[in-house]
Amino acid sequence: MAQKLRIIPLGGLGEIGKNMTVYEYGRNMIVVDCGVMFPESDMYGIDLVLPDYSYVVQNQDKLRGIVLTHGHMDHIAALPYLLREVKAPIYGTPLTLGLVERQLREKNVFDRATLTTLTQGEATHLGPFQITPFAVAHSIPDSVGLVIDTPVGKIVHTGDYKLDETPAGGYRTDLETLERLTRDGVLAMFGDSTNADRPGRTPTERVVGETLDRLLSQAGDQRVIIATFSSLLARLQEIMHLAHKHGRHVALTGRSLVENVKLARDLGYLDVPEGVLVDIEARVPPSKMLILSTGSQGEPRSALNQMANDQHRQLKIGRGDLIIISGGTIPGNEEVVGQMLNKLFERGANVIYGPMATVHVSGHGSRDEMRAMLETVKPRYFIPAHGEARHLHLHAQLAVEAGMPAERVFVLKNGARWVTDGANAWMDEPIAVDEVLVDGRLIGEIGEIVMRDRRRLSQDGFIVALIPINEHRQLVGEPQIVSRGFIYLNGADDLLASARQEIKRQYRRGSHNLQRALEDLVYRETQLRPVVLPQYIQV
Amino acid sequence: MAQKLRIIPLGGLGEIGKNMTVYEYGRNMIVVDCGVMFPESDMYGIDLVLPDYSYVVQNQDKLRGIVLTHGHMDHIAALPYLLREVKAPIYGTPLTLGLVERQLREKNVFDRATLTTLTQGEATHLGPFQITPFAVAHSIPDSVGLVIDTPVGKIVHTGDYKLDETPAGGYRTDLETLERLTRDGVLAMFGDSTNADRPGRTPTERVVGETLDRLLSQAGDQRVIIATFSSLLARLQEIMHLAHKHGRHVALTGRSLVENVKLARDLGYLDVPEGVLVDIEARVPPSKMLILSTGSQGEPRSALNQMANDQHRQLKIGRGDLIIISGGTIPGNEEVVGQMLNKLFERGANVIYGPMATVHVSGHGSRDEMRAMLETVKPRYFIPAHGEARHLHLHAQLAVEAGMPAERVFVLKNGARWVTDGANAWMDEPIAVDEVLVDGRLIGEIGEIVMRDRRRLSQDGFIVALIPINEHRQLVGEPQIVSRGFIYLNGADDLLASARQEIKRQYRRGSHNLQRALEDLVYRETQLRPVVLPQYIQV
Repeated sequence: MAQKLRIIPLGGLGEIGKNMTVYEYGRNMIVVDCGVMFPESDMYGIDLVLPDYSYVVQNQDKLRGIVLTHGHMDHIAALPYLLREVKAPIYGTPLTLGLVERQLREKNVFDRATLTTLTQGEATHLGPFQITPFAVAHSIPDSVGLVIDTPVGKIVHTGDYKLDETPAGGYRTDLETLERLTRDGVLAMFGDSTNADRPGRTPTERVVGETLDRLLSQAGDQRVIIATFSSLLARLQEIMHLAHKHGRHVALTGRSLVENVKLARDLGYLDVPEGVLVDIEARVPPSKMLILSTGSQGEPRSALNQMANDQHRQLKIGRGDLIIISGGTIPGNEEVVGQMLNKLFERGANVIYGPMATVHVSGHGSRDEMRAMLETVKPRYFIPAHGEARHLHLHAQLAVEAGMPAERVFVLKNGARWVTDGANAWMDEPIAVDEVLVDGRLIGEIGEIVMRDRRRLSQDGFIVALIPINEHRQLVGEPQIVSRGFIYLNGADDLLASARQEIKRQYRRGSHNLQRALEDLVYRETQLRPVVLPQYIQV
Repeated sequence: MAQKLRIIPLGGLGEIGKNMTVYEYGRNMIVVDCGVMFPESDMYGIDLVLPDYSYVVQNQDKLRGIVLTHGHMDHIAALPYLLREVKAPIYGTPLTLGLVERQLREKNVFDRATLTTLTQGEATHLGPFQITPFAVAHSIPDSVGLVIDTPVGKIVHTGDYKLDETPAGGYRTDLETLERLTRDGVLAMFGDSTNADRPGRTPTERVVGETLDRLLSQAGDQRVIIATFSSLLARLQEIMHLAHKHGRHVALTGRSLVENVKLARDLGYLDVPEGVLVDIEARVPPSKMLILSTGSQGEPRSALNQMANDQHRQLKIGRGDLIIISGGTIPGNEEVVGQMLNKLFERGANVIYGPMATVHVSGHGSRDEMRAMLETVKPRYFIPAHGEARHLHLHAQLAVEAGMPAERVFVLKNGARWVTDGANAWMDEPIAVDEVLVDGRLIGEIGEIVMRDRRRLSQDGFIVALIPINEHRQLVGEPQIVSRGFIYLNGADDLLASARQEIKRQYRRGSHNLQRALEDLVYRETQLRPVVLPQYIQV
C-alpha cells in the first residue's frame, strides 16, 4: 500500500506567530520553522508563547531535520526550547542561521545543534523529502520559500513573502525559479495569509526609501532619530545609504539593533559606507547625526521608550529632534505606541509616524500578490497559512474567486492532520495541541486556571478572610481580612466591619458556603467581584 | 480694573474622551460639555473615567449653565454624576437633550435637571456670556459648535466636526453662519484635534452609503447583518433608506440601538419608510432581511459578540450570512474586534470590515479641514482641544504652518488656566485635576495604590503566608500558604516546602523582613514576582 503525506500545522494557524509545520511521510518527518508568539493582551503576565511541539518530541526518531524559511522570531525563536528535548539538524540560509546561532548561544543550547546552510535553487535531501529553497522578498534578507518534493507530489510552502519589484537590498521574490521548479505540477500550496484583508498590492519598500530621503533633505539642523525593527535589515541598509548621502553619521541604540547590525555586517548582509557609523556618545553636531533606535512598538524597555520617559543614559529628547517611527504598529500595541508618541511630543520633539507619511510598509503581500502566487504555482490543493482565522478564510475565498474548486481549499487549525495520497486529500483525526505559555522560568506550567485567576485579580483584586477556629471547629476570636487590589481598606471600616459580622453570622448558622456569602456581601456593597478566599486557622 | 476671561479645560486634553471645559469671567462660569472616557487597557477593572469637576462643585455659585455641543457619551455622560453635586440649567439642541434626558432618567437624577433647547444661529444669554450655536457635520445629527461672546472678545468652541459637503442626513457644517457670527474678529478658538495626524480630508459619509448600496445589491440571498455604533444616527438613516431600496426589512438587536432608534424617531431625526422595521423574530426570508446590530467594537455583551459566541437569543450565525462592520475600530479595541471577526468567519459567515471596503469614515475632519476652519475663524489665539498630546501638538504645528505666530498658540493640559484680557493672553497657575475612576458603585475611591496592586496581581498573582505565633511572638506550628494566579500549587510541592522552610529559618534568625525573603525565594525559583503578604496569626 502506498504511503501518505501528512501536513500537520502545530502553530501559526488561527494566530499571528509561533509558526511551525510538520510534514510527515511514513516513518519520516521534517519540521518547517519553529517560532514564538508574543502574548495577546489577555494573556496576563505571560512572556512568550511556544507552539505545542509534543508531537515532534514523541516522534523524534522520525525527525530528519528542521528547515527554516527566514530569521524572524515568529519562525525561529522556539528552537532553543525544542532543542532541549530533541536533537535534529537545522537547515537555513546563512543570515537565518546566523540569527539562530545567536538565539541558541543565548540559551546555552548551541552545542546541541548542527546547522547546515541551504542555497537558493539547490535541492537538499532529508529522507524522502527533497527541499529546494527559492528567494522571496520579505522584510529581512535571505528569506526563502520552499519547494518540497515528496513521493506523492510537490508542495510549495511559501513562507512570508511579498512580490515587491523594487525591494530594499534587491531581494526580489524569484518567481522564475519557482516556475521552473514547479513546471511539472504542484500537489499543494501552503501560503502566507497575513494581509488577506488588504486589497491590491502592498506598496514597495522603495516608497519608504523615498519618504525617508525627503524627510532627511528637509531635516535641516534637527537631530534625526529613526526607530525601526532591528530585524528590518533591508530598511537599515537603506537608512545607512541615505545617511551617507545626506552627510550624516549613524549611531545605534538598543541591544538587538547593535547585535543585528554587527551580525549582518559580519555575514555580508549590510554594507555600511566607510566612516558613517559612530559611537552614540561621539561629538557630532545634531545636523550631522542620525540615530537608529529600537522601540517602534513602544516596548517598555526599548531605547525610544527610555527617551520618551527621559531615562535614556545618553540621549535627551527636546526641541530640535526629528523622530521618525519607521515601523508599523503591531495590532494590540496601538495604545502603548500612542502613549510613547505623546511623551515625545511633550518633550518638544517633532515626530513623524503612521498615517502622516509612508514611513513603513508591510513585509507581506496583499490580495493581488496572493492571487499572483496562486496563479504561478497552480496547486491542486490549497491550505491558507500564517494568519488568524479571518485571514485564512479570506485567503480561501480568494483562491475560490481565482478559480479553485472550494472542495480543494482547506482551512485548517493547529493540530489538524491534512492527508494526501497524491490523488485525493482528506482529514485525519486532529492531534491535541495547547498553547505553551512561558512565564519567567516556567514553561507550560501556567494553565487555564492560573490565567483565569489573574484575569479576575486584575479586575477586582482579592480578599482573604482568616477565620480562627478551635479543634471543635468553633469560631474563637475575631476574623482578620487581608486584601489587595480591591479597594483601599484604610478607608473602608464599614465594609470590613460588615464582613466580620457576616462571617460570624454565617458561622453561627453553621453555613457551609461562607465564600458565597462574603462574595454576595461585597457585591451588594460595591458591585465588585474580587476573588474571595475564606481561610480557617486552627488555634 | 477690567475682568479677565479664563478657559480651564477639566478633561479632553491629552486624552480622547471626558470632554469638559470651564469658561470663567469674574463671578460667572459656564461649562461646555460633560463627558466620560472609556478606560484605557491599563486601567484594570475600571468601568468609566469621569473628568475631575471638583472645581465646578466648589464654585457652583458662579455656574450659569452647562452647554452641550452634541449627544455623544464623551460629551454628555458625566452629567448624571455632576448633577448629584451641582444644580445648573443644561442647554443643548433637541436631539442632544433627548439623549441627556435618557441618561439622567437611567441614573435617577432627571428631577434635578432643567433642560433648555438651543436653536442654531440664535443667541442665549448666560450671565455675561452669549452663546450662539452653529451647525457642524459630525457622526450624530444636531451637533453644534459654539460662538461664545464674552466681554473681552469672541471665542469659537468648535466641538467635534468635519467639513463634509455630502454628509448623511444633510447635516453640513454651517460655515456661512460661522463667518457671519465672527465677522468682527475672534479672540480665541478652541478646536477639535482628533485627526491632526491625518493628511488631507476625511472622506465624505456618502462614500459609506455608496459602499453599502453596492454590497446590498451584491448580497443576493444572503441575510445581511450590519454592525455599527448606535449613536451614528445619520448612518442608521442611510441604512434604513438602502434597506427599503433593496426590498429588505430591518430588524434591530442591541439595547442602545433599539433605544436610540426610538428616541430619534420620536424626535423626528430618523425617517423610517413605512413597513421597513420588523421584529427580530419576524418570519422574513434571509434575502429580505437586514439586521442592524450593536457590537462594532467587539464589546463583550454586545449583540454581535453574542452572535460570534453563539449566545444570541434569536440569531444563529452560519453560512449564508453577510456581516458588515460599519464602524471604525477605536484604538485599543483592535484585538477584541479581531477575535470577534475570527469567530464569525469560523461560523461560516462572510464578513466585510476595515480595509476591505470603505464601510466607515471618521466623524472628525482631517488636516485640510482643520486648516480651513482656522482660515475661516482667523482667531487671534488658538488652543488645540479634543485629542491626545500628539494630536494637540500636531494641530498646533498646523496652525503655525497656516501662518499663526507660535506664541499665540497654546498647547494646554487638563487643569491649565488660560487667561486673557482681550489684548494679551497668559497662563495662571494650573489647578490640580485627577482622573476620577468609576468601578462598580465606587466613584473616585479607587486610587493609584489599588491600580498598582491590580496591575501586579494581573502579572503574577499573590501569595499569602499565614504564620501562627503565640503571645510571645514565637512560631508555633506549620505556616500555611494561600495563593491564586501565581502557579498551580497542586503541582508545586517543592516550592511550597521551600517557602515553609524559609519562613521558619527567617523566623529563627529573628528576621524582620520576611516578605523580602519570600519574594527573593520565589523569584529565584520561578523568576516571577507575585504580591507576597506574610500574615501573623496569634494562636
